[in-house]
Amino acid sequence: MGEFDLIERYFKRPPRQANVGVGDDCAVWTPREGHQLALSADMLVEGRHFLSTVDPVHLGHKSLAVNLSDLAACGATPQAFLLSLSLPRVDEDWLSSFTQGLFDLADAHACELIGGDTTQGPLNIAITVMGDVPHGQVILRRNAQVDDDVYVSGFLGDARLALEAFRGAISLPESVFSTARQRLECPDPRVALGQALRGVATAMADISDGLVGDLGHILQSSHVGADIDVSCASRLMATSALWHCPEDLAFTCVLSGGDDYELVFTAPPSKARSVQLAAEVTGTRVTRIGRTTAQRGLILRDAHGLAITPALCSFDHFA
Amino acid sequence: MGEFDLIERYFKRPPRQANVGVGDDCAVWTPREGHQLALSADMLVEGRHFLSTVDPVHLGHKSLAVNLSDLAACGATPQAFLLSLSLPRVDEDWLSSFTQGLFDLADAHACELIGGDTTQGPLNIAITVMGDVPHGQVILRRNAQVDDDVYVSGFLGDARLALEAFRGAISLPESVFSTARQRLECPDPRVALGQALRGVATAMADISDGLVGDLGHILQSSHVGADIDVSCASRLMATSALWHCPEDLAFTCVLSGGDDYELVFTAPPSKARSVQLAAEVTGTRVTRIGRTTAQRGLILRDAHGLAITPALCSFDHFA
Repeated sequence: MGEFDLIERYFKRPPRQANVGVGDDCAVWTPREGHQLALSADMLVEGRHFLSTVDPVHLGHKSLAVNLSDLAACGATPQAFLLSLSLPRVDEDWLSSFTQGLFDLADAHACELIGGDTTQGPLNIAITVMGDVPHGQVILRRNAQVDDDVYVSGFLGDARLALEAFRGAISLPESVFSTARQRLECPDPRVALGQALRGVATAMADISDGLVGDLGHILQSSHVGADIDVSCASRLMATSALWHCPEDLAFTCVLSGGDDYELVFTAPPSKARSVQLAAEVTGTRVTRIGRTTAQRGLILRDAHGLAITPALCSFDHFA
Repeated sequence: MGEFDLIERYFKRPPRQANVGVGDDCAVWTPREGHQLALSADMLVEGRHFLSTVDPVHLGHKSLAVNLSDLAACGATPQAFLLSLSLPRVDEDWLSSFTQGLFDLADAHACELIGGDTTQGPLNIAITVMGDVPHGQVILRRNAQVDDDVYVSGFLGDARLALEAFRGAISLPESVFSTARQRLECPDPRVALGQALRGVATAMADISDGLVGDLGHILQSSHVGADIDVSCASRLMATSALWHCPEDLAFTCVLSGGDDYELVFTAPPSKARSVQLAAEVTGTRVTRIGRTTAQRGLILRDAHGLAITPALCSFDHFA
């Protein structure tokens, strides 16, 4: 099967919102008046972001999910994406499964594949996603104010826990491993919550490199610090296994595990009710974990209010 | 050097048109009212699209050039791009040269880097480019009419000639090789000509896979055929070397060489003067090579009007 047949068979679908979709030199798309575009690009490399043994359905899902998570972090509504795919060979079973996972998630968010590229080479998946936001309502990292509350969506740590189990560093009961693995391989981007927090959250980021690292980006961009209650953070632990693994590993998973694709955000105490409402309306758990401070830097406190300094850092591809 | 330092040092520049550029979860960009967006993505893989010995300045140029060429083919004005880059290691000299080539071309077209991703892995460069076109003026492949003239910009065949020389299949004088290599490694996307042909060309494509293949896409999408005079095509030969290489290789280079990044387009005979004007205004050579026909299929004729059928096909990454 050649390149054009491959595109025709697996990637071409009738355009919906796009004026011109897959198959011309460019995709053509008319943005809504009065809206700003939010754009993000993420690249997934075999052996770095996923194991060669991963189910291609999950890989298709995750490739788009990590991009949708960036839109969620800006409060944007997904609209369209472009996929550039480098494949070692044409494997029809693989392509069929990969596109199933990809399009199921795309359809769930009405996010249309409008273009891209396919070529031969080491397996590499590069997606650029576009969303829109009513003008001036985008939620950035840089607008957190002093004395804002700091919140986290959902649960943290599962993805890292699954990774530790894959590495053989920890042994987990099958049911726990299966739940943790699902969160690692099929993250659920918080798109609805992101949009519900427009006009509520002052700053927001998605947690891809770990809570401490990604909250750190907000604090640095906003020129504030934060005081985080780790006993709140411990309530963020997702699976019962985290209660049974060594305390330092549990902290590492929750505070700097990464690959969680939850949202960390700030909002003034006056908006606490609106945060709760956004959580309820979107069926998303939201936990308050601390408060921003005029004093720069991030302080983690235990249940007795004492500052702790675990060896935590965020994920860095070249560190 | 870590991932964030790398982005800070080599890729972060103050936003210009973008509301938010590199460094948040998403780039934010406000499209102009009454304009449509044209979007394209191209991925370059080492060993497939470029040799490991290529000058990184040229590689940075070409990575963006092939994307700008897609915008040119739609008559779009470049606005912004996102870059996803997978690197085996952090090589500061390489990054410095690569970004020089990239940003020199980007600046020449006022096309702003607004976001992207960096990761570790086999060298892979994935760019998504965005341009805009006044509403309804985009030039697609599918609107060629019967009895339109068929035109090609610039010269064809140099890139393939350089490739044949690299492969050792042909020996070229140093000055000829150097010119041909420049065209292979530093193609000049026909952005100004593409825009000048708005309202003039009925259909257009850029020549990345070879004239016959890319004209074939126009014919297929437009449900027409074409009758091409190969003696016109021979005037498309770029370097004097093409006159000295075997005739079948010369034909292959010009008609199906690929990597030319010229434009092939159709326009009604009534617009012949406008085509000439667009060529003059943008300082681009344009050659009429034939005419579209109601009869489907592509016929190539020699100087005596006899149909010839050289073994030509367009480039296919998985063929």
